[in-house]
Amino acid sequence: MPALFQHPALAGILPVQAGGRISPLDEARLSQARARLDSLAKPQGSLGRLEEIAMRLACLSHPCEVAPAVIFTCAADHGVADEGVSPFPQSVTRAMVENFLQGGAAINALTGAAGMDLAIVDAGCRGGPFADPRVINLRLGDGTANLAAGPAMDAETCLKGLASGCRLACDWIARGWRCLGIGEMGIANTTPATALYCQLLGLSPSEAAGPGTGADPAMVAHKAEVVARALAVNRDRLSARTPDGLPDPIAALACLGGFEIAVMAGIVLGAASLQAPVLIDGFIASAAYACAVLAAPACADFAFVAHASAEPGHQPAMARLARLTPHPAWGRPLLHLGMRLGEGTGAAMAYPLLKGACAAYTQMASLADVAAGPSASPSA
Amino acid sequence: MPALFQHPALAGILPVQAGGRISPLDEARLSQARARLDSLAKPQGSLGRLEEIAMRLACLSHPCEVAPAVIFTCAADHGVADEGVSPFPQSVTRAMVENFLQGGAAINALTGAAGMDLAIVDAGCRGGPFADPRVINLRLGDGTANLAAGPAMDAETCLKGLASGCRLACDWIARGWRCLGIGEMGIANTTPATALYCQLLGLSPSEAAGPGTGADPAMVAHKAEVVARALAVNRDRLSARTPDGLPDPIAALACLGGFEIAVMAGIVLGAASLQAPVLIDGFIASAAYACAVLAAPACADFAFVAHASAEPGHQPAMARLARLTPHPAWGRPLLHLGMRLGEGTGAAMAYPLLKGACAAYTQMASLADVAAGPSASPSA
Repeated sequence: MPALFQHPALAGILPVQAGGRISPLDEARLSQARARLDSLAKPQGSLGRLEEIAMRLACLSHPCEVAPAVIFTCAADHGVADEGVSPFPQSVTRAMVENFLQGGAAINALTGAAGMDLAIVDAGCRGGPFADPRVINLRLGDGTANLAAGPAMDAETCLKGLASGCRLACDWIARGWRCLGIGEMGIANTTPATALYCQLLGLSPSEAAGPGTGADPAMVAHKAEVVARALAVNRDRLSARTPDGLPDPIAALACLGGFEIAVMAGIVLGAASLQAPVLIDGFIASAAYACAVLAAPACADFAFVAHASAEPGHQPAMARLARLTPHPAWGRPLLHLGMRLGEGTGAAMAYPLLKGACAAYTQMASLADVAAGPSASPSA
Repeated sequence: MPALFQHPALAGILPVQAGGRISPLDEARLSQARARLDSLAKPQGSLGRLEEIAMRLACLSHPCEVAPAVIFTCAADHGVADEGVSPFPQSVTRAMVENFLQGGAAINALTGAAGMDLAIVDAGCRGGPFADPRVINLRLGDGTANLAAGPAMDAETCLKGLASGCRLACDWIARGWRCLGIGEMGIANTTPATALYCQLLGLSPSEAAGPGTGADPAMVAHKAEVVARALAVNRDRLSARTPDGLPDPIAALACLGGFEIAVMAGIVLGAASLQAPVLIDGFIASAAYACAVLAAPACADFAFVAHASAEPGHQPAMARLARLTPHPAWGRPLLHLGMRLGEGTGAAMAYPLLKGACAAYTQMASLADVAAGPSASPSA
């Protein structure tokens, strides 16, 4: 039963108030929530996936509360950019962080439209810390090493990233935020994400590699070759296995990941440890999520895969990942809009579904009330 | 070119300020909007269908304004309920209208969560007018006649329904609403919707009929038989054709429709005539939309098919309908959440996508601004 496994390294990372563990949603409470949904004034199941969302949100530590909400857009640079895997120069990572701070990016517009807050996290952009105090400094370095030439980071740095992401999530939850989201910015970061899907979920480099921000077919083929090289050069470290026989996700994250991916994985673990919901954005954020799931499958109970990215490897990866979780059906992406921008934009567009599910669950009358007529209703 | 056709009966229905016509979106303005989207700080096309939505909303009479928004939930009863095509008694239509007024229905919760207004329209529920003054009285009768025994309504009543729906939409737009939505309540109304898809789009009764609110397989088969009977008994009136050789949608609506379907079709036509956006809910609302499109294909430029219903006939119907419109790709449903409740619930859940698209279009910086750095930005 994968739900019960938890990577031993997490004991030192997860908060003490959670007992250093991630506990799955309580099945008895889920059944009660299902029964309540079936009692409401609608044909049973007729709200489709909103009912699945509502049932899960009803069993959180703060049932059916998803506001205020915040998206953590985590930025970092990647040594593998030296391999020519992106049409954009690395300087764009930093320029886009400045754009987030100016309010001119898609994620500013979409979090605003969705009624969410936005927090910018520097997990390790090239060029040193940002002067703007609004940037949350969780820097793990000045960009990763080239994963096609060796490990992207050492194991200690990886654990530090997981711990600081986890602490960040727990801090914001303690301060009252009721829903978190993860998104990212990092030129070349589809390459580490692709490598993680290959290592953790058994996809091949050629099926997992896609155009990302706009690579042409030759660059996509080159990216697949770079990923294959990364898997080969890190083979010894990647041979570590969990007690379930699955690839060790923390070793994979250190060898093949990125600083923002480690921090995002930590945010997922932190949210899950406190039984708070977390929205997972697209291709790269989902790779962080995959690391978290392999480290503690129970964290999937608290995660919502916001959307299916246009990146061709995303849906196959999410389908394989869902099979490793306690409730595979919950792992299907919520939106299918052909988005492929990252930043957390898909997470922002899925957030209203969570709000709607909570509203339906908490505000609808029961079938019995409706059958009894207006005079029987408490508000009549 | 189907976009240029307009049913002659619409000249007397559409508002004089629109010249009695529905004009498609201007292709030159669409190109300008596309160019602006391509200039923004993101890889081109990376916001997926949000870009398609934004491009369309940028060309409306009130560009990129979708608030305030209102969903018209239109209720009526259906004589075909006598055929035993629904597991619920007709009295539920009226009970659910009372529930809308009490605030206890799914559509109350979901419009509230989405920041939309809700307006309840009585298009012809059994039992006479509602006493509550919040109900908009557009009654066309006390439920339709049984469409399996003859026309559901006469042609004059059908035109009256289209005209009153159109006037309702135009009134609310004139009073400042910037986005409309259509949804419905009416026991047995998947049967007229199914019949309309068969007549207008060439689906067979067995492929178009589905479980609706929860019919068992025997009831679904019976529903298909009732639809086949309706098509046969109304054959003479249904033989009318438009100049394009398509089935006459107004004759179809009179013979096979419902009062709420006629009013909803009128709302779509009214919104389109004033170049305002209109969200189309699920299986039954989409049948009203199909009538509007066959009467004036240009109205599709202003409509957003909110979601793919769980009703099996919905996606085939929407795919066929899209091929009759000027921009078939725009007709793909936005959400795929397995919803099948009606009321406008899917339209409410799609509305945040329109808000997000507008925000991205109007608030994002250009790539040139980002490349020039913070000091070049107007907000720096």
